[in-house]
Amino acid sequence: MSARDDAVVPREPRWAPDLLARAYLSRVAEPPAPGLAGFVVEVGPVEAAERVRRGDVPAPVAAETAARRGVERAAADLAAAAASGMRLLTPEHPEWPAGPFEALAGCGVGELAPPVALWVTGPGRLAALCERAVAVVGARAATGYGTHVAGELGAALAQRSCTVVSGAAIGIDGAAHRGALGAAGATVAVLACGADRAYPRAHETLLARIAGTGLVVSEYPPGSVPGRHRFLVRNRLIAGLAAGTVVVEAGLRSGATRTATDTASLGRPVMAVPGPVTSGMSAGCHRLLREGAVLVTRAEEVLEGIGPIGAQLALDPPVPRRATDGLEPAAQLVHDAFPAGGACGTRWLAEEAGVPLGAVRVALVELERRDLVEHRDGSWRLHPRSVGR
Amino acid sequence: MSARDDAVVPREPRWAPDLLARAYLSRVAEPPAPGLAGFVVEVGPVEAAERVRRGDVPAPVAAETAARRGVERAAADLAAAAASGMRLLTPEHPEWPAGPFEALAGCGVGELAPPVALWVTGPGRLAALCERAVAVVGARAATGYGTHVAGELGAALAQRSCTVVSGAAIGIDGAAHRGALGAAGATVAVLACGADRAYPRAHETLLARIAGTGLVVSEYPPGSVPGRHRFLVRNRLIAGLAAGTVVVEAGLRSGATRTATDTASLGRPVMAVPGPVTSGMSAGCHRLLREGAVLVTRAEEVLEGIGPIGAQLALDPPVPRRATDGLEPAAQLVHDAFPAGGACGTRWLAEEAGVPLGAVRVALVELERRDLVEHRDGSWRLHPRSVGR
Repeated sequence: MSARDDAVVPREPRWAPDLLARAYLSRVAEPPAPGLAGFVVEVGPVEAAERVRRGDVPAPVAAETAARRGVERAAADLAAAAASGMRLLTPEHPEWPAGPFEALAGCGVGELAPPVALWVTGPGRLAALCERAVAVVGARAATGYGTHVAGELGAALAQRSCTVVSGAAIGIDGAAHRGALGAAGATVAVLACGADRAYPRAHETLLARIAGTGLVVSEYPPGSVPGRHRFLVRNRLIAGLAAGTVVVEAGLRSGATRTATDTASLGRPVMAVPGPVTSGMSAGCHRLLREGAVLVTRAEEVLEGIGPIGAQLALDPPVPRRATDGLEPAAQLVHDAFPAGGACGTRWLAEEAGVPLGAVRVALVELERRDLVEHRDGSWRLHPRSVGR
Repeated sequence: MSARDDAVVPREPRWAPDLLARAYLSRVAEPPAPGLAGFVVEVGPVEAAERVRRGDVPAPVAAETAARRGVERAAADLAAAAASGMRLLTPEHPEWPAGPFEALAGCGVGELAPPVALWVTGPGRLAALCERAVAVVGARAATGYGTHVAGELGAALAQRSCTVVSGAAIGIDGAAHRGALGAAGATVAVLACGADRAYPRAHETLLARIAGTGLVVSEYPPGSVPGRHRFLVRNRLIAGLAAGTVVVEAGLRSGATRTATDTASLGRPVMAVPGPVTSGMSAGCHRLLREGAVLVTRAEEVLEGIGPIGAQLALDPPVPRRATDGLEPAAQLVHDAFPAGGACGTRWLAEEAGVPLGAVRVALVELERRDLVEHRDGSWRLHPRSVGR
């Protein structure tokens, strides 16, 4: 370790006010919170958080926040998250999947309200991953046929540069994630508990692999426990992050059909894989198909189903060129980890970005070459010209 | 055998002129013969046959009949048919499925031209059988899954008073017929060869069972051999007799998809049973489903698919009450077997109607009771008041 590494390590990162505000709001309102979502858009996150604290909010917001508005754990949550390699994405962040999530607010269904923030773990850049993403979901009690098809589909989609979004559950979800990982592709797991929890326990290794190459995402703050209600609520985010949803196997009362319903509410294509009519695990798929879902048998048909990528995300605003465009994922993460105005050391950056120390050093070389950061007085800071880019 | 049984048996039945004309036309034109079909509608069967014999016909009709117009086997075919328990149905006959076949002429597709007549074997009454009929078809090289589903579907449709129409082929067709027979239901086999031939040979017993309770149907005269072309042409009759078609299993190049195409051309619903996407034998079904066919998993959905029975057969004219309405099938057959103006004996009736001698005697009791026939001078004839009813 060089002398300059630990030069100026802030003891507590100076969290940006909007980040602190959203971390607070993420803790005090149980999703979905349509009242709060609208209120934050109206007055901004910092004022929204202040007024929630004071109880000075419209009735719907009060109803959503009354029970927990006294829970002040924003800084502690952010610190705990950073310590476990997690970071908080907010709509103010360039990684935020603004285009895909526009539909959550735009569809006018309160149950589908967008999250106030997302806690994520992993090197993946969410906005970029969602540019070409398909949700592959299905039953926990999947058959061998279903897990086989989900795995093949996950791999084939990944091979075609398509991110596989799913819920990390036993059965179809897990097989889809594994298929994508096996093809060295991108996959995003959206959890119904804190992104720092390995749930289901049997998927601890799988979740670690996803967090190691893709992204584990949750709107629930660190430590949150899963629950029946949260699984259903979580499904809107799976639908919201993807250009379309494929249900591989589902019983008639499967949660996967909820993801399909949410997808349809967002105006995006619902696809289903058929199976034997003698299999109860295909009954939910067959019902979806009878109700208008598109039958798909392989990845090409799924890609055809979501149409020209982005067509379903018509609300996606044109993305301006940024100075950070084209950065390697690790370099991007390191760049994003820098405190807005402060200085820091490589060790702190490694922890903050969730990137190994060696990779941080490689990334800093690239960032320095592109005039995005500078090394001064023994520590690193964003290049003055680069701030706000 | 009583003395009156063999009293006056005409050595050669006096075939009605239109029957003879259509038997001749059935032999001389290879189906489909849209030119001939239109010509017969225009000038009637008797004049059409005379002019075909002379070669005095419009060019399209000449093209269809030139090769075989010298083949004069009408009376011989009718006699041979009668001898083997077969009869010729014509549009002049009350058993003719006029409503369902209207669509064949009405769709304007030459390939779907209606037949000039149908050779049939069995106690079934075709028009009545088609009032509520579904075609269940599929691949010869069916899987165990496919034959299982076809058999269950055939049985369940039969139990719901729905006639199962199919092509008597190995695989799905055979399973569908067997399912219907097993449920003591009605089933109709449409052959691509003479209705007196057992083809495929492996289905000799199955065909005999269908002919014993339902109906074996062919537009090809007795003794005709099957051929690749005839299988495809035959499929339009399967589609034409049913209110809708269900494809249970089909490869991508299956003849069953031709039946589906014909069904769609007739404006009737095409349904398909899904299966594993890993099965080539379901690939044709999945393609049909992606192209708009209705996914069905059980008989109730098939019946829902064909809608209110008859809605697809909107051209079916209202059926007037007939003096023969409500007759037992055997009695109806015996009644229909009577020569229009002549007298006959029970043995002749048995042969002509394809009904066992004992059943003929039972039938005659009923027919006499209803004043439909009378016994006079030692032989049977239609009751004068009943002729033309």
